[in-house]
Amino acid sequence: MVSRVLAANLSRHTGAVVRVAGWVHRRRRLKSVTFVIVRDRSGLAQVVLPATAEPAVAELPEETVVEVRGRVTANPQAPGGAEITEPVISALSEPAAAPPFDPYRPAVTATLPTILDHAPVTLRHPRLRAGFEVASASVAGFRAALDDLGFTEVRTPKIVSSVTESGANVFGIDYFGRRAYLAQSPQLFKQALVGVFERVYEVGPVFRAEPHDTTRHLAQYTSLDAELGFVADHHDVMAVLRDVVARMVDAVAERAVGAVDLLGFRLPRVPHAIPVIHFAEAQELLARHTAEDPRGEPDLAPAHERWLSEWAQRTHDSEFLFVTGYPMVKRPFYTHPDPERPGYSNSFDLLFRGLELVTGGQRLHRRADYLAALAERGESPEPYQSYVDVFAHGMPPHGGFAIGLERWTARLLGVSNIREVTLFPRDLHRLEP
Amino acid sequence: MVSRVLAANLSRHTGAVVRVAGWVHRRRRLKSVTFVIVRDRSGLAQVVLPATAEPAVAELPEETVVEVRGRVTANPQAPGGAEITEPVISALSEPAAAPPFDPYRPAVTATLPTILDHAPVTLRHPRLRAGFEVASASVAGFRAALDDLGFTEVRTPKIVSSVTESGANVFGIDYFGRRAYLAQSPQLFKQALVGVFERVYEVGPVFRAEPHDTTRHLAQYTSLDAELGFVADHHDVMAVLRDVVARMVDAVAERAVGAVDLLGFRLPRVPHAIPVIHFAEAQELLARHTAEDPRGEPDLAPAHERWLSEWAQRTHDSEFLFVTGYPMVKRPFYTHPDPERPGYSNSFDLLFRGLELVTGGQRLHRRADYLAALAERGESPEPYQSYVDVFAHGMPPHGGFAIGLERWTARLLGVSNIREVTLFPRDLHRLEP
Repeated sequence: MVSRVLAANLSRHTGAVVRVAGWVHRRRRLKSVTFVIVRDRSGLAQVVLPATAEPAVAELPEETVVEVRGRVTANPQAPGGAEITEPVISALSEPAAAPPFDPYRPAVTATLPTILDHAPVTLRHPRLRAGFEVASASVAGFRAALDDLGFTEVRTPKIVSSVTESGANVFGIDYFGRRAYLAQSPQLFKQALVGVFERVYEVGPVFRAEPHDTTRHLAQYTSLDAELGFVADHHDVMAVLRDVVARMVDAVAERAVGAVDLLGFRLPRVPHAIPVIHFAEAQELLARHTAEDPRGEPDLAPAHERWLSEWAQRTHDSEFLFVTGYPMVKRPFYTHPDPERPGYSNSFDLLFRGLELVTGGQRLHRRADYLAALAERGESPEPYQSYVDVFAHGMPPHGGFAIGLERWTARLLGVSNIREVTLFPRDLHRLEP
Repeated sequence: MVSRVLAANLSRHTGAVVRVAGWVHRRRRLKSVTFVIVRDRSGLAQVVLPATAEPAVAELPEETVVEVRGRVTANPQAPGGAEITEPVISALSEPAAAPPFDPYRPAVTATLPTILDHAPVTLRHPRLRAGFEVASASVAGFRAALDDLGFTEVRTPKIVSSVTESGANVFGIDYFGRRAYLAQSPQLFKQALVGVFERVYEVGPVFRAEPHDTTRHLAQYTSLDAELGFVADHHDVMAVLRDVVARMVDAVAERAVGAVDLLGFRLPRVPHAIPVIHFAEAQELLARHTAEDPRGEPDLAPAHERWLSEWAQRTHDSEFLFVTGYPMVKRPFYTHPDPERPGYSNSFDLLFRGLELVTGGQRLHRRADYLAALAERGESPEPYQSYVDVFAHGMPPHGGFAIGLERWTARLLGVSNIREVTLFPRDLHRLEP
């Protein structure tokens, strides 16, 4: 059997008889010929049928899967500079039902609900598919950076016996007659595994029973988690994160260059030293330069994040900005306080193009500190028992971060709803397909 | 600050003052000196304390986290040929509570339940940790092989609205007041995504509510899934699987060489062409050469798998064996039948060292075939509606496979219970830690 040639490589075979296979992307009947554009994972191939071709073949509907044998003929006007002439076309699928919109049109003409309802066919549109190539390349870059830094990849339970992040937003499961929950993050496990491997990362699903219908939240998303031991403080964590983000951008540029070109978005430059501003100084800046005075507030409002991002761009020529030292009251109980500034923490957010992209920080590493932190918040240590006990066995100072993959991809592409960059999203209303 | 040196690199710094950090692996008090062995992610470093050292330091319990500054001095008897003299030791953690067994003893002396109950500390034992380094290297090999073959990595929903694999063994979730389930496999999604990307893979958790307490089953495990379009039949899938397995073995040899040496297991040679036997011929062989006559049975018993594995070793010098063509009755409804041999399927199992390691095959790709297959099994198409509808939109002939990561690792290491190679396993009785 003639082995298959991908559309993108067609011009390398000029003069030869080859086999291509893919989807009928578009048919165009002219008077003397019919063009059949075949789409495969690499791109498009133009097939030229004579007017005498059997109607059954010339009229195969778009999205039907076909195999084409024919001769590669140079044609500067065809995609890739070559086309297939003298073709023999055979259908590998039934004639395809019409998709809800035409994947061959350059623009995506459907609404988001239509796209999501029919994802198995709508995602075939090259512009929609491209976003997922960017996401996958980003994950490859995340892993490559951490592999080079001596991290070990881990896989942790998604079914847990108690809730450690926050009481709300958790899915309950019937676990062999017991009550269990879907893990909201691998926080507990990645910290425990610092005791085993020193440096760990995990790429996996996390689950939030988000009762709100927003463009930024999903019931399941992909968390890129990292945690490392033997840090002096959160700045060591931020240094790793900087390298990780730079590598993610590089991986997109290398592995998804076609997607970047097609979507026409701009990849950010990641500065060697991302600018850093302390939360309290950020509030001072905002008080001085905007109509608002956020001093005393425990967190930054979205508008503040946008302003600070623009400020970093303006004054440091950076699309990234670290804000450090968020008030302890707004951070989880496992957050390490700043020993120098009471009330503030050794934590950070990484802002990117106006939005919080990553949250991280140094964690407590002594059992006594966990018990004190829980007591201070008026929480019983009981549900956290097995978590807290880990720290009785000698844990190093450590910290980490989590990047929401969908949020990262959306920000990179400049799309406003993360559902556009999620394969089969799950939310308050959506459980299918 | 003097930057940290890993134990494994100590001898490169002979004569210099360095900083090492890690866990007190072992203390040995002799008359004139105390040896403190410090363990970090790279290995062990010997620290020599004079008899005059403060007892508070010389008596830090094992597993306490310490930082040591001192001079690197050559000593052929020390691990790695160098040790630290004139040390200044400071504790980074509280004095550690005693682990349930001593991680410094070469053998693991605890029972499996003890190991699992105290995983955050027991997994620090180098022999236990090593298994996870093998697993992580295997996953890296899986991905590298498929990346090179033009596959796209995907992430699919773990919360689904209906059950497609088999009615039993599924965890129910309360999904915003609706009934939903934890996905038993990404089967449906990976097939649909063949329509988008042609070739996809996913590394992710899958969930089975296994009511049986066996050494081979878990409620959550890691499935290495791949699916590819434009196959002639299942042999094209098997060719990809062969390359994937070979790359997994190579990755273990490259990335986890220390773990392989420590555990002393043998990596298999993956033949360029793994021997293949048809299910019917396998039964003939068993009837001819063993006391049993399995002809007419729809599946292979574990003893048959062992015999066939030994046969492949004996006659083909291979630890791997493909058994193809399993009877349709024992395969899922989406399995493609063998067009030449009624009743048999275009499916396969890959046996490795006596056990089924991978299941895969060609799938149906026409909507009408799905409806017929469900009708033949007396199943209503209704719960499968959105799955079946995917095939109305032009799907290529395709197939795929799934490797259970824990099963693979256990087989490679020669351990009998997959809990030994699972970080924090989940089963009928175990929901913690």
